[in-house]
This record gives sequence, C-alpha cells and structure tokens, in this order.
Amino acid sequence: MNFNEGLVISEITSIFSQSNKSNPQVIVGIGDDAAVVTTDQHSVITTDMAIENIHFKRQWSTAYEIGSKVTVANLADIYAMGADPRYLVVALTLTGNEELSWIKQLAQGIADTAAKSGAVVVGGDLSRAEQIMISISAIGSSRLHITRSGARIGDSIYVSALPGWSRAGYEVLSRNLTESKVFDRALTQFKCPELVPTLMRSFKSAHSLCDISDSFLEQAEQLSQASQVRFEIDTKMFEKAEGFADLASVAHAIGCDVWDLVLAGGEDHVLLATGINLPGICIGRVLEGSGLNVLDMKKAPDPWRHFN
Amino acid sequence: MNFNEGLVISEITSIFSQSNKSNPQVIVGIGDDAAVVTTDQHSVITTDMAIENIHFKRQWSTAYEIGSKVTVANLADIYAMGADPRYLVVALTLTGNEELSWIKQLAQGIADTAAKSGAVVVGGDLSRAEQIMISISAIGSSRLHITRSGARIGDSIYVSALPGWSRAGYEVLSRNLTESKVFDRALTQFKCPELVPTLMRSFKSAHSLCDISDSFLEQAEQLSQASQVRFEIDTKMFEKAEGFADLASVAHAIGCDVWDLVLAGGEDHVLLATGINLPGICIGRVLEGSGLNVLDMKKAPDPWRHFN
Repeated sequence: MNFNEGLVISEITSIFSQSNKSNPQVIVGIGDDAAVVTTDQHSVITTDMAIENIHFKRQWSTAYEIGSKVTVANLADIYAMGADPRYLVVALTLTGNEELSWIKQLAQGIADTAAKSGAVVVGGDLSRAEQIMISISAIGSSRLHITRSGARIGDSIYVSALPGWSRAGYEVLSRNLTESKVFDRALTQFKCPELVPTLMRSFKSAHSLCDISDSFLEQAEQLSQASQVRFEIDTKMFEKAEGFADLASVAHAIGCDVWDLVLAGGEDHVLLATGINLPGICIGRVLEGSGLNVLDMKKAPDPWRHFN
Repeated sequence: MNFNEGLVISEITSIFSQSNKSNPQVIVGIGDDAAVVTTDQHSVITTDMAIENIHFKRQWSTAYEIGSKVTVANLADIYAMGADPRYLVVALTLTGNEELSWIKQLAQGIADTAAKSGAVVVGGDLSRAEQIMISISAIGSSRLHITRSGARIGDSIYVSALPGWSRAGYEVLSRNLTESKVFDRALTQFKCPELVPTLMRSFKSAHSLCDISDSFLEQAEQLSQASQVRFEIDTKMFEKAEGFADLASVAHAIGCDVWDLVLAGGEDHVLLATGINLPGICIGRVLEGSGLNVLDMKKAPDPWRHFN
C-alpha cells in the first residue's frame, strides 16, 4: 500500500473501538485474536459483501454511504429473521490508492449505521487487493426466529415499505440524470438506504418473513415455495402505498415502467412478511396451492441485475 | 460469470448443507436470510480472509488446500482465545474463469477442515470480482476466555509446536526449489497447515494465549506488551523442539537462516501461551519489566511479508 498499513489499522480500530468500550455485552473488543461477546441461547448469523464496480462505484457514492449501505444489507438480513443485530466483523480490502480520509469515512459509515441498530463492530481484517471489497458478517440475538417457510393459508401479505426506490436511484445514476430534485429520494435510497429499527422490529409476530434484497417477485416466489402455499399479489394495493405517486413520477422522468422498479427492483431492504394485522402495506393474501399470482400485472417486469 | 451462478450456489450449498442437517445446534441452516444457531452465554467472533496473489497462488496450491488454509486461520483465532469453533460464514468472490470442479474443491476444503474442529458452515455470500477472495468469519463458544493480557510474572512461555515451517514452504515455492523430498513437510505446512484440535484445546489453563499468524517475535512482543511484563526467550530451548534439526536442514537447503523461519516466519497457526505446566515446547519465562529479550539470537531475523 502507498499508505501506512499500521496507521490505517489504528485509525479504523479507533473508530470502531469507541462503541466497544461503552457496550457492556462486549467483554473483549477489537485487538485480541477474536472478540468475546455475550450471546443469547439462539444467535442469528449472516454475511453480505460489497465489491467496487459490482455493488458500488466511488464516483457515485461517498465512502460514508458505501460503508452504510453494506452494513444495512447485513442488518436487514438479521431483522428479516425476526432478530436484533448485535455484533459485526468487517473484512476490508484496499487497493492502496485510497486517501486515509476516505477510509475513515467508510469505517464511520459502518460504525454509525451499526450503532443506529444497537450493533457494534467487534473485529476485522485488512488486506490489499486489486479492488475495494467490504465483507461484513453480522450476529444477531433472537428469542424467536421467523423463517421463509411459515406462511399460512389465510395470512395477509405485507411489505414494510414500497420497494423500487433503490433501483430507481440506480437507473437515474446509470443514465446520468441526476440534475433534478425529483430524483432525490431515489438517489438517497440507492446510495445510502436507511433502516428504521422500530419498523424492522415491528414484524416479530409475522408467520414468515424475508428481506427484499433481490427483487419483490423473486423473494415472494421464494417465500411461497418455502411455505408450500400460493401467494396472490394485488398490484392495486401497492398503488395505495406512501410514495407510489412520487415513484411513478420518477419512473416517468427516467423513462421506465414503475412496475419494473416496484416488482423487479433490487437492494431495497424492505421486509416481506405474511401474518395477521401486521404493520406496513398489505399487498395480497396467502392461498392454498403453489406459485405466485400477480393480479393486474400488465407485463413481466425486467429483472434487476448488478452492474454489468 | 461465464458459468451459471445459480448452479455454483446450489453446488456449494449442497457441500455445506450436509453438515448443517446433522448438527442439532443448527436450527436454521443455509438458505434463509440468516442462519439460526444455538449459542452459549459467551461467544467468540473473528474474521480472516485470503486474497489471490496476496495470500495464495493458484499455481502453488490446489483449491482444496486454499479453502482449508483460510479456514485454519479462522479456527486458530478461535482456539487462541481458549474457545471452541462452532459456526462459519463464507463470503467468496470468483472471477468467472474458474472451473466448477475447482470451486467445489474449494468449498470441500473449507467444509472438511471446519468439520475436523467440530465447526459447520451456516451461510455465505457469492459475488463476481477481478480476484478470488475468500472471507470467512468464525463464531466460537467459550466458557472461559484467554486474552493476550493475562501473562503473569513467573509464568513459563510455550509454543504449541515449532514455528517456521510455513515460511519455509513459502521460501521453497518462491525460489522454485520443490524437487526434493526434504521440502515435503514445509510445503504441506505452507499449502495446507493442519490444526490438531486436541492440541489446540490443551491450552485452556494458559494465563495468556495467542496465535502466531504474523511471526513469533511480533506476537511475543504483543503478548508481553498487553500483559505489561518482560518475556525472556531462550533460542536454545527451540532447538530441543521436535523437527528443529529437520527445519535447519530445510533452511540450509533453501539457503536461509533457520532463525528467520522460526522467529520471523508467518502463518504458522501455532499457539503462543504463558502459564504453568502447559503442553507444547517451553521456550522462556515471564519476568518483571517490559519488552522482549531473546537470548543467544545471533542477528535480527528478516521479517515475514506476504507476496508482492
């Protein structure tokens, strides 16, 4: 690296260590062979990474946004089990061309986003590579857990928020359309999606639950398959969701179909749930049978793909 | 990718899932948003990655060996806290040019090595990138934990085995000297180091403990600093260790100093411990004061560095 590796480690460690010290559940924090933490009887474990030019571009997002976004992806997977995020470890590769200030902002984005969900970074690894790669693993605590296979006939189907904003932001950026205020929400949701912990935690009575990180249609299909039931989705019910008219305006300004965004968008980190009287937006019901019926869908939406 | 990503995921999942199903502690294994596992009151968490051409070369090591080695690095960090490895998650990047058989062997190397220590892979993430990267996080279970800061005046200092073999293997490979049987042990230790779980678990009464993954001197310095004591190391005591004469022959054949290997070698995954009547090789004692004294060291050894 053309910067001092020891200095980078010490700066990153200093950013992450602050929340280690103030957390009584962290018994041994960063700096030993491994961290020692307090865990409940059941823990939830996941891992999710972000690679430069596959999942993010430095010309599109700040370091803080990049760090925040990959952290959100991990936290959302923990919430999607009905669990609460507790601990993260971060493996990071750098090319050696990054400014120290950029690296510190990346770490700060991870640390702040973790803190908002009550989670703390307790360890990491750093290496040089040809590409920047941020690989995070998250450990959550769970008294109960909600899988994809618990949907019951008679359940209603919910999303925690309208999906599609992240893909809208991606389309705006990839078409170089950023010069309009109408795109602000889409850009924010793509670059630095926000998790609202109280909302994410409000699905603990769901019968089945998952995170819409691939696309609504793909994950609804997975949930219905895992639960061996049929999902009937009514697109009209999405239209009642907060923000639908705005998203439709954005789709119009981009020149794409709003249903490509809503049904086939990726990286939304919105929860998809089935159950009775859940919060969020009711968009369908669970029936006997198998597969996914989408009522009033005019055409099959274009699927979401990462860059290239 | 020029192979089918779905097929790769399904083949890898199938390799890892077998041990999920037979492990009663894995409540929800691979395939949901996150795994759900049984944990004790205290858990130990670490992460360690391997990058192509930084930590391994495909022309030097088989996929199985590469998978095994990065797994060993993670398991050793768990053992180095006095804990037992339980669960792993694996984030993997591929360039798209790998054969499916190579990828399966990589996964098998990870799965088999984890299984030898009673650990199981419960989740993962896959992406394309310009380089192969394997990032593993490990979670261990710990009734007690042994940090680097517990060394007491009067302790003896131990290593679980003679360090240096891994660097010897690296030197043999980087100098193109592989055509002699005398190099076999060094090559094996570099390509596919073996952890002996019974040996790794036999240090649970140590007062301080760490893994020699950087180099003996560096980690002994860290241990003495963290414990605020002085370490006196007697190089003559290393000479009594099993394999010392063989390692000296290897060093001679390579054309390097055996103490560069023993004291400044890296990636050994040997435990360094202080305490009373521990197993392994006694190589010194803990005294009042600070710093590291190495008796009979003829010259300062050349430090270990990764490729490049």
